[in-house]
Amino acid sequence: MIQFDMKDIPSRECVPGVHGKFAHSPNMTMAWWRIEEGAQMPEHSHEHEQVVNVVEGTLEITAEGKKWTLGPGSVLVIPGGVPHLARGVTECRVIDAFYPAREDYK
Amino acid sequence: MIQFDMKDIPSRECVPGVHGKFAHSPNMTMAWWRIEEGAQMPEHSHEHEQVVNVVEGTLEITAEGKKWTLGPGSVLVIPGGVPHLARGVTECRVIDAFYPAREDYK
Repeated sequence: MIQFDMKDIPSRECVPGVHGKFAHSPNMTMAWWRIEEGAQMPEHSHEHEQVVNVVEGTLEITAEGKKWTLGPGSVLVIPGGVPHLARGVTECRVIDAFYPAREDYK
Repeated sequence: MIQFDMKDIPSRECVPGVHGKFAHSPNMTMAWWRIEEGAQMPEHSHEHEQVVNVVEGTLEITAEGKKWTLGPGSVLVIPGGVPHLARGVTECRVIDAFYPAREDYK
C-alpha cells in the first residue's frame, strides 16, 4: 500500500499553463493535471496507453485528424503510439492513467 | 481512440450505496464511483493492481490491519491480491484505475 497526497506533491509545469502532479504504482502512473484556459500540450506521443478522465472544465484533444471536446465525465482512451495534443478550452482538471508506468515522470 | 461519457453510462449499484460506472481500455479499467455516506464495499480482493483517486469527500480504506482516511487529492495504491474494504465517511466521488482491465466489470 502506497499513499500519495497530491496536496503535498510539488506541481511540475510541463509546458506553460500545464501543471502536473504524478503518483506511480508498479504498473500505472496517475497524472493529476490543472490546465489553464488556452494552455496547450503540443503534439507528442508515447508507447504508453493513456486514459484521460476529465473531472472539471473543458479539454480538447486532437489526434488522427479529429478533435474531441471533453467535459466533466468524459473519458478518452488514447492507444500507445498515437500522436495527440491537448488544449484547455477552459481551465480544467484532468486525471490521466497511463500503462505502463511513466518512467519519464518519475 | 475510444470515448466514453459517464453521463450516458448507466450506474451499477454494486452493493447498497456504492454506485459505479466503468470505462475500459485494452489494459485498464476506470471505475467512477459515487459512494453514499456510510455505504461500505465489504472486504474483497482481486488480482488487479488498483489505484484509488479521491476527487471529493472522505473515503476510508481498511487493509492489512490498518485504516487510511482519504480526502480530495489522496491517491492510494492497493497491490493485487491484498484484501481491502472501503467505506464512505461522507458521500464521496472516487476514480479507481485498475490494471489489468476488469473483465468482471465489462
